[in-house]
Amino acid sequence: MGIAALAGGVGASKLLFGLARAMPPGELTIVVNTGDDIEMHGLTICPDLDIVTYTLAGVVNPATGWGIDGDTFAARDYLGRYGRETWFNLGDRDLATHIHRTDMLHRGKTLSECAESIRRALGVKAKILPMSDEPVRTQIETENGLLPFQHYLVKHRAAPRVTKIHFHGAESAEPAPGVLEAIAAADGIVICPSNPLISIRPILAVTGIRDAIAARRADVVAISPIVGGASLKGPSDKMMAELGLEVSALGVARMYRDIVGRIIIDGADAALQTSIEELGVAGSVTGTVMRTGEDKVRLAAYTLTQFKKKASSAPA
Amino acid sequence: MGIAALAGGVGASKLLFGLARAMPPGELTIVVNTGDDIEMHGLTICPDLDIVTYTLAGVVNPATGWGIDGDTFAARDYLGRYGRETWFNLGDRDLATHIHRTDMLHRGKTLSECAESIRRALGVKAKILPMSDEPVRTQIETENGLLPFQHYLVKHRAAPRVTKIHFHGAESAEPAPGVLEAIAAADGIVICPSNPLISIRPILAVTGIRDAIAARRADVVAISPIVGGASLKGPSDKMMAELGLEVSALGVARMYRDIVGRIIIDGADAALQTSIEELGVAGSVTGTVMRTGEDKVRLAAYTLTQFKKKASSAPA
Repeated sequence: MGIAALAGGVGASKLLFGLARAMPPGELTIVVNTGDDIEMHGLTICPDLDIVTYTLAGVVNPATGWGIDGDTFAARDYLGRYGRETWFNLGDRDLATHIHRTDMLHRGKTLSECAESIRRALGVKAKILPMSDEPVRTQIETENGLLPFQHYLVKHRAAPRVTKIHFHGAESAEPAPGVLEAIAAADGIVICPSNPLISIRPILAVTGIRDAIAARRADVVAISPIVGGASLKGPSDKMMAELGLEVSALGVARMYRDIVGRIIIDGADAALQTSIEELGVAGSVTGTVMRTGEDKVRLAAYTLTQFKKKASSAPA
Repeated sequence: MGIAALAGGVGASKLLFGLARAMPPGELTIVVNTGDDIEMHGLTICPDLDIVTYTLAGVVNPATGWGIDGDTFAARDYLGRYGRETWFNLGDRDLATHIHRTDMLHRGKTLSECAESIRRALGVKAKILPMSDEPVRTQIETENGLLPFQHYLVKHRAAPRVTKIHFHGAESAEPAPGVLEAIAAADGIVICPSNPLISIRPILAVTGIRDAIAARRADVVAISPIVGGASLKGPSDKMMAELGLEVSALGVARMYRDIVGRIIIDGADAALQTSIEELGVAGSVTGTVMRTGEDKVRLAAYTLTQFKKKASSAPA
């Protein structure tokens, strides 16, 4: 059973950890958001690609969900001596990834080739694709002005009120090789429980991806990242509220209704199922909070069973 | 008293440590060999500039004479996971220097500007100039073929027999801003006890530097890096022998006779003084082996006293 998954960073990687265990990982293709990418100190840093790769490689820092377990920060501290910004936490081992990738890019390799090199070196069997080989940069329009995404998220800790979100470069970016093919060929497509606004939307904004997903709508299952009216991780809830969206699994279903046949919601949100199905989106209720490895594998396995049901349970 | 010094790496930095204490360091200008520079993983690495800067900043690893004290190697080990060469020891803190410099270069800054930024950030008062802002790369012709310098020195541990030495790019390289001015204005010029063949010659090979030094010959004092027929550090002796040069302070004096008014030799080589003076180079005899900080300051202070004597003690 071939599965394609759309993924951001920490939220997605929990489910992906489970998927890579609940199914043959070689049949899993992950399309990863690169709108969060940032150039820093001349290095190209791809936080979501790295989080997904490190997680599936089993080297991720389990305490944070990003970075490499046991990493040190000697280079970052010394970069500070040179007057450089140190708010973005670059570990020493992690830096090797950025150096390797940046050198490959300078030598004319594509971001897909970098991602492939890194996941193979770290022994990851699932296929990991950037959404595009061309740069797309998420920019957050806030009450304090336009902020590059990592400045908004890390430097300003997502504090400024969001008024609009831009995916700079998305309209002219082509999907990376294999992305549309994986979407077209997959038995099922998973939209991971990532921030819909800044993890999934940039992927959909790349030319042709939204249409490709919409064409497979009956085979697309999303997992709501909002549980009980709050995001489990990150500022999804705050951002949704600031943009006037309902902060609930129903709000998520509204955002996804054109591209998703089914949404998996947490038991805490079971009361929303009727409203969700009224949108024409099938609802499945299960525990979606992933604290342990077992939780991740269980939710992944549950997700895989939802494809067989297709959208048959949805109202006409 | 303004002093200009020509310097390689570890050998030179011992004397420079002393000079920066035996005189007001702000009146010291160091012209550093960049023939040893290497591009690795897309980073521009300048071993001699860094050794000199780290030494004067007091952060050098005292056990090796290069790298930063207490540095770790997490990034290097991870670069190995990506299939990259790890024979060149890049410490994590050290890597910050290379990242900072490479980013500056990519943004259009010169190598001089990088060196200035790094030495100021690390609190070094002496002026540190690369010999040129343009790339010069020392290449060692050996029985095993042509080797870039660091490949010869570090990867092959200086084992292959040397047949010729090239300074690729030197003939078209201009001295960095301030180099000729420092040589012209200095009260005295020191040629540090560096490898004459691969630390000092590349500096002299840059357009105009040899002539500028020769024009100041009476004010140029060299310290022989060969003591008792052997180099104190590195492969100077082996390389000199392979190139058919006499491996002695006299052999060094022969190489420097056109540009040096006086050479300081070790007490162990006192018997060579007459032969050296027959070359028209004044000889001064003192202890030149620098084991302790006191040794370094003492030899530096002694060196400074030799300028007042000028070449007056040399035969006509």
